[in-house]
Amino acid sequence: MTTYKLALIPGDGIGVDVTDAAMTVLDVAAKRFGFALEPQTFPWSCDYYLKTGAMMPADGIETLRGFDAIFLGAVGWPDTVPDSVSLHGLLLPIRKAFDQYANIRPHRMLAGVEGPLKASEFDILCIRENTEGEYSGAGGRVHQGKGNEVAVETSIFTRVGVERILRFGFEQAQARRKHLTSVTKSNAQKYSMVFWDEVTRELAAEYPEVTVSHMHIDAMAAKMVMNPQDLDVVVASNLFGDILTDLGAAIQGGLGFAASANICPDRSGPSMFEPVHGSAPDIAGQNIANPIAAIWSGAQMLEHLGETDAAAAVLDAVEAATAKGIGTRPGQNTTDDITAAVCAALEA
Amino acid sequence: MTTYKLALIPGDGIGVDVTDAAMTVLDVAAKRFGFALEPQTFPWSCDYYLKTGAMMPADGIETLRGFDAIFLGAVGWPDTVPDSVSLHGLLLPIRKAFDQYANIRPHRMLAGVEGPLKASEFDILCIRENTEGEYSGAGGRVHQGKGNEVAVETSIFTRVGVERILRFGFEQAQARRKHLTSVTKSNAQKYSMVFWDEVTRELAAEYPEVTVSHMHIDAMAAKMVMNPQDLDVVVASNLFGDILTDLGAAIQGGLGFAASANICPDRSGPSMFEPVHGSAPDIAGQNIANPIAAIWSGAQMLEHLGETDAAAAVLDAVEAATAKGIGTRPGQNTTDDITAAVCAALEA
Ligand SMILES: CC(C)[C@H](C(=O)O)[C@@H](O)C(=O)O
Ligand SMILES: CC(C)[C@H](C(=O)O)[C@@H](O)C(=O)O
Repeated sequence: MTTYKLALIPGDGIGVDVTDAAMTVLDVAAKRFGFALEPQTFPWSCDYYLKTGAMMPADGIETLRGFDAIFLGAVGWPDTVPDSVSLHGLLLPIRKAFDQYANIRPHRMLAGVEGPLKASEFDILCIRENTEGEYSGAGGRVHQGKGNEVAVETSIFTRVGVERILRFGFEQAQARRKHLTSVTKSNAQKYSMVFWDEVTRELAAEYPEVTVSHMHIDAMAAKMVMNPQDLDVVVASNLFGDILTDLGAAIQGGLGFAASANICPDRSGPSMFEPVHGSAPDIAGQNIANPIAAIWSGAQMLEHLGETDAAAAVLDAVEAATAKGIGTRPGQNTTDDITAAVCAALEA
Repeated sequence: MTTYKLALIPGDGIGVDVTDAAMTVLDVAAKRFGFALEPQTFPWSCDYYLKTGAMMPADGIETLRGFDAIFLGAVGWPDTVPDSVSLHGLLLPIRKAFDQYANIRPHRMLAGVEGPLKASEFDILCIRENTEGEYSGAGGRVHQGKGNEVAVETSIFTRVGVERILRFGFEQAQARRKHLTSVTKSNAQKYSMVFWDEVTRELAAEYPEVTVSHMHIDAMAAKMVMNPQDLDVVVASNLFGDILTDLGAAIQGGLGFAASANICPDRSGPSMFEPVHGSAPDIAGQNIANPIAAIWSGAQMLEHLGETDAAAAVLDAVEAATAKGIGTRPGQNTTDDITAAVCAALEA
């Protein structure tokens, strides 16, 4: 029997609630499809920071390297540790260290879920660049606290970085409806985004079957709301992908339904799977967080591990539950009830 | 009789159609309220660029300085002149030269307009920083065309720039529902956005009547779609404001309804008024562009000039027309018909 070693990082707040729930579902899938998941839990979090002064140990990255995949809940507890510390100490370094450059976020309506839009027919796969760009972390502040203070934040885009994410996007488009939308802001950012547009045009020549649209981030945000049905694969920089995928989460009914995979495509390191939502301190530990985003992220993990049938079955089970209205409205069902309903559908 | 000298820059594409329409309406308002508008038209545009090699003459900014206000249609015709050239040659330099640091964009549903959201009860005033930040234009590319190419784009935030836009936002909030949402991404951009958050907290102490929310741009994009009714005044950087206001345009029914004022609050130079939409080459000159965004921008201009009653009357007239369904659906009415309906309501 194949056994997959998972690094489980529940993190903060509802990260604990939803990874618990998701692991319960994934274990049922493992049993049904004849493989095993062997999770090792790491308590790296803001609590851990308050005790140790670091979000993870100095050898944290090396520890994670040996696993088949990383499953993460949520990071951040702003009342105790500034986000700029907690995220730069855990989530962002993992994405970068293992070259998890492709952040895949699917946006479509699950059966039974009500979204804020009148439209509900869309199926978007957002591919977000995950290692550089606007979140490079390069910058500084001078004359701090003075009247002439200046803060600079530098976006850094490398040809390797831009090419590989676009290539990944073209491959995904080829396996789907063969349409790719590349999102930039080249009319106002004339170095980084003009560069991105150029690379997109170069690569487009290699994928003649894929039709390509170039859109600016502002127009694209509007399009997600006005004509989401026109979109297939969307490729965007770190920041633009971040914004568009929260917007994607919103149109699909909320962050409770938004899954995410941080993929290292050449498998030189483990990939990481995590719901898009944050730690939601206000509802943590109350058995009311919606675990569907985490379960869906778990399905993405199974797919990445090669357990394609199990992945599909988990997603079907989620949709069997939501189709009955379970987990579709905030506060209607407990975390445990939603988890039980998905497990029941998966066993049926 | 007071006469206001206007610099009229129709620009490209439908910029011509909609400024024509708006000027017709504004003249009716002037007649009714007893003032005069004296426009001087400048043909600065992509056409002008193709003829002269520049989007405006070298003394263009000096020429504009003498006017009471600038009314602009749209800039850009990407098939002939790259946006990165046309916008950096006309629109963006004007915003910067006259310290039009406050870009004001109102988002609410006009009577009779159908939006993409199920919700329609919202009234948001977005205040976008308009002179620095992510559109500073600082950056470069090295090893161009090589495998090790790197493009950098640097966001520059000054204390003067951040403080003045936030202060402007607080003043607006005080005159409205006393709630301000400051939008950053300080969990991932730890120099620029952490700085912005600090300045927000400092100023908040000076405006105790205003309640302040801090939101990240990703969560904020989701909120605009899921709970827009919670928002009052929103203050954001150049890029974030750009994105949120296109999103605002989308939820209010589309870019045909999105007005914008580029304000120089200390009046050391003229302010500029322009619809949010672009030049839409595909429908230019066909008498089908929706002039409502331009007319609303014209109303913002009248208000800025001190003609408050006329401004309110123009907006009422627009809403009298849309309430009857005129101008509410793309292609249903011609530009001329919509203009005539607004003029009729204004004269009534
Ligand atoms: C928590 C934050 C740093 C993170 C990001 O911006 O990458 C989150 O918003 C996400 O989308 O995964
Ligand atoms: C055309 C473009 C440069 C401009 C901007 O981003 O400022 C536009 O999108 C706007 O919102 O006014």
